[in-house]
Amino acid sequence: MTKEFFKQQEKRAVGLEIGLQEFLHELSFNSDDLIPVISQQHSDKTVLMMAWMNREAIEKTLMTGRVCYWSRSRQKFWFKGEESGHTQELVSMQVDCDGDCLLLQVKQVGGACHTQRQHCFYWHIDAKTKMARIVEQ
Amino acid sequence: MTKEFFKQQEKRAVGLEIGLQEFLHELSFNSDDLIPVISQQHSDKTVLMMAWMNREAIEKTLMTGRVCYWSRSRQKFWFKGEESGHTQELVSMQVDCDGDCLLLQVKQVGGACHTQRQHCFYWHIDAKTKMARIVEQ
Repeated sequence: MTKEFFKQQEKRAVGLEIGLQEFLHELSFNSDDLIPVISQQHSDKTVLMMAWMNREAIEKTLMTGRVCYWSRSRQKFWFKGEESGHTQELVSMQVDCDGDCLLLQVKQVGGACHTQRQHCFYWHIDAKTKMARIVEQ
Repeated sequence: MTKEFFKQQEKRAVGLEIGLQEFLHELSFNSDDLIPVISQQHSDKTVLMMAWMNREAIEKTLMTGRVCYWSRSRQKFWFKGEESGHTQELVSMQVDCDGDCLLLQVKQVGGACHTQRQHCFYWHIDAKTKMARIVEQ
């Protein structure tokens, strides 16, 4: 189990390094060979969107410095902004404690959301009134 | 398709409201009836972790104000911090443009990560040196 790899490393000291190929091999991809990816605007820490990558998309992103997801609806690689111009430049890539999620710091050009909004999370749920509400235009 | 519901709403004005039960019904849960959930420290915007909820976990979270995930490894509800004391108090709940991801603003007590670290994303990938490195103790 790849989780075992991460368990073994979790008490290691700051600065411990693992080669990228070996590390990517240990990531937990789902049954579609995908891993969830969160992108965050590096400057103001806004969470922009969540999408998916396979191993090749991770490598394309690292190699080019432009964020490349795997589009589940179109079943193909998707360099963010290739049609809209709303690109994401990679600032840094982080991986979580059990190797099943990525967090990207990015420089987002234009809106990250396909609706042109700055980010995708524009529905707010109000626990008191029990309503979901659009909060950004 | 539930995505269709979100497509129909995306050009609606700020303030549009949908009843919570109808809205939750339209969310896209995966084949295990789960939806990915990102939690973010409300005060400094640190992305803490990514985990999963089913519809009942969402409702428990909204009802109690304490964040309740579904543990895939233990196959049971998991009120964050119920064993460690490192609880998450819900500040707000957001949903993304196509209804397949949640973003929570939380007040995290103690470390969010099971390793005691503040957050789970303590591996950094260096695209230049092609190494993955632990960057937080």
